[in-house]
Amino acid sequence: MNSFPSNPRIAVVGSGALGCYYGGRLVQHGHDVHFLMRSDFDHVHAHGLHIQSHAGDFDLAPDQLRVYRDPANMPPADLVIVTLKATANHAFPSLISPLLADHTAILTLQNGLGNEQQLADLFGQQRIIGGLAFACINRIAPGQILHTDYGLIKIGEFGRPPSPRLQTIAQLFQGSNIPCEILADLNAGRWEKLIWNVPFNALGAALNVTTDRLINNPAGQTLVRQIMEEVIAIAHADGVNLDPALIDKNINRSLTMGPYRTSMQMDRQNHRPIELQSILGQPLQVARSHALATPHIQMLYQLLATQIRSLQDPVIE
Amino acid sequence: MNSFPSNPRIAVVGSGALGCYYGGRLVQHGHDVHFLMRSDFDHVHAHGLHIQSHAGDFDLAPDQLRVYRDPANMPPADLVIVTLKATANHAFPSLISPLLADHTAILTLQNGLGNEQQLADLFGQQRIIGGLAFACINRIAPGQILHTDYGLIKIGEFGRPPSPRLQTIAQLFQGSNIPCEILADLNAGRWEKLIWNVPFNALGAALNVTTDRLINNPAGQTLVRQIMEEVIAIAHADGVNLDPALIDKNINRSLTMGPYRTSMQMDRQNHRPIELQSILGQPLQVARSHALATPHIQMLYQLLATQIRSLQDPVIE
Repeated sequence: MNSFPSNPRIAVVGSGALGCYYGGRLVQHGHDVHFLMRSDFDHVHAHGLHIQSHAGDFDLAPDQLRVYRDPANMPPADLVIVTLKATANHAFPSLISPLLADHTAILTLQNGLGNEQQLADLFGQQRIIGGLAFACINRIAPGQILHTDYGLIKIGEFGRPPSPRLQTIAQLFQGSNIPCEILADLNAGRWEKLIWNVPFNALGAALNVTTDRLINNPAGQTLVRQIMEEVIAIAHADGVNLDPALIDKNINRSLTMGPYRTSMQMDRQNHRPIELQSILGQPLQVARSHALATPHIQMLYQLLATQIRSLQDPVIE
Repeated sequence: MNSFPSNPRIAVVGSGALGCYYGGRLVQHGHDVHFLMRSDFDHVHAHGLHIQSHAGDFDLAPDQLRVYRDPANMPPADLVIVTLKATANHAFPSLISPLLADHTAILTLQNGLGNEQQLADLFGQQRIIGGLAFACINRIAPGQILHTDYGLIKIGEFGRPPSPRLQTIAQLFQGSNIPCEILADLNAGRWEKLIWNVPFNALGAALNVTTDRLINNPAGQTLVRQIMEEVIAIAHADGVNLDPALIDKNINRSLTMGPYRTSMQMDRQNHRPIELQSILGQPLQVARSHALATPHIQMLYQLLATQIRSLQDPVIE
C-alpha cells in the first residue's frame, strides 16, 4: 500500500450524478480521470459536462474528458472510484476487472451496507476503501449535473485502520475543491450515514414526497425519528454506538435543504431499480441476526418491495 | 318506526359514484329519488346519468332525475341516504337538517367507523341506520359511473336490533336490482368490512398502487395479511369476534377484481381529502383505548398523514 502514487490514474465506474460531479472536480483540477459511462456517453462525448454547483459552476469540454463505453478500452487505474447504483453490483466483475493492476485501490462511494464486502469477495479486501458522500447532487439531463448542497466525502479502509494511501486520496480530493475527511472506523461511518438514508430515501420513494414534506409536518417528522431510532438500535447491536443527538442533527441539516428528492425517490419516479437491498435489506439482515425488532424499517421494506414488483409494471402516477 | 312508508321519498346526499349508482338504480325502478349534487350538478342536469354496470347498463335522462344544488330546495324525505365522503362530515348539519321530518330515517353508506355516531349526535340515534356497500364503483367522468364488480349492501340499525323499517328498506333495494342483506349486528359488520378497507384503501393510497399489485406479490400480500390481522385484533378488543378465515376470503375475492383503484387511492391521485379518520383514525383510537399495539396500522396512518399535509401542497407524481 506504500506504493500508492501521489498523482494516481483514476477510473470512475458508473458516471451518474455523483461520478460526474466528483470525477469532474478531479479533471478540473488537472487529474487523470477516465469515465466509464453508459446512458450519457453519446451526449458527454459530443458536448462534455455542464456542472452547476453551489461550490462553483464549471464546464468540461469533450476534449478535456476521457469517456468510455467499454471498460476493455480503458487503461488500468491506480484508483477505481465506484459510483454505480448498488442495484448494478452484479456487474462488478465485468466492469471493474479490466481496470485492475496489482496495486489498484477500489473506493466505493455507493449507498448503504454491503458494497465493500461484495467488492472484497471479488477483488480482495486489501484493495477496498469505503467512502460516504454527503451531498445533494442530481443529474438533471444528460451531461448536466446539479449540486445544490453539501459535498463532503468521508473515506475509510474496509476492516482496517487508516493507511497512508487514505492520506494521499484525501489530499487529492481536498486539492480538487472536494472536502474530505478520513474515518477511523468505516463501519461506524456507514451506520451514521444510514441514520439519514434509511428514513429519507425509503419514505421519499415509498410516498413519493420530497425531504421537506417528510419533516415539515408532525406525522412525517415523528416517523423519520422513529426510523432513525431503529437504525441507531441496529448499529448498537452491530457494535457501533451512535450518539442519539445525531437524530436532531440530521433533522436540522435536512430542514435547510429545501425540497430535495432523494436518489431513491428519483429512481422510483423514473421506474428504475431502487437501492432497496443496500439501504434497507442489509440493515434488516443485521437486525435479524441479533433478533432485534425494527418494525418501522421492516414495514418500509415491505412497502417498497410491494411497489417495485417489477420494472415491467410501471408505477401509476 | 312502524310508520315508515313502503314507498318512501328518498334523498341522496353526496352524489358521487355510490350515490349516483344506488340512487340511479332506485330511479330506474320507479322510486322517488332526490339527488343533492355538487360538482356534477351542471352535467347531470343537462345530460343525465350514464351508468355502465356489470349488473346491467342503464341511462337516466335529465327529465327522469330530480337533482338539486341546495338542500333548502329539496322536499323533506322519508329516507336520507348519505353517500358523502367521510371527509365532508362537518357539513352534516347544513346538508341534512333541511331534509328531515319527524319520522325521517338516515342511512349512511359511508366508509369506516364513526359516521353513525356523528349522525346520531346531531339528529338522534333513533333515525340512524348504518349500511355497508360491497361494490367496485368509480365515477369516471361527470355523470358517468362505472360499476365493475359486486354490489351488495348490508344494512343494520345503529345500536339496536333489526327493526321493521330495515325490512322495508331491504325490499326497496332488492326490488331495484340491488342485493341487500340485513345485519343483526351493525358494529360487527363495520369491523368485518374494515378487514378489507384498512389494508387496501390505505396501502393503495400510500403507495399509489392498485389492489392487484398489492396482493399479486409476496411482500404486498404479507403486508395486507398483517394489517388484516391487526383489524381483527382491534375488533376483538371492541367485543367483536371475527373469523380469521375472513383474511383468506378477503384476499381471494380481491384476486378476481382486477386492477382496482380504491376510493382512497383515487382521492390521493386527484389531490382530494382522503378518509383517513374514518378508515384508520377511528380504529386506531379503539386500539389505543384498549392499549392494543397495532404497529402496521399506526405506521400507515403516519405515512398517509405525512403525504396529505395539505391540499395546497400537491402530491408530486
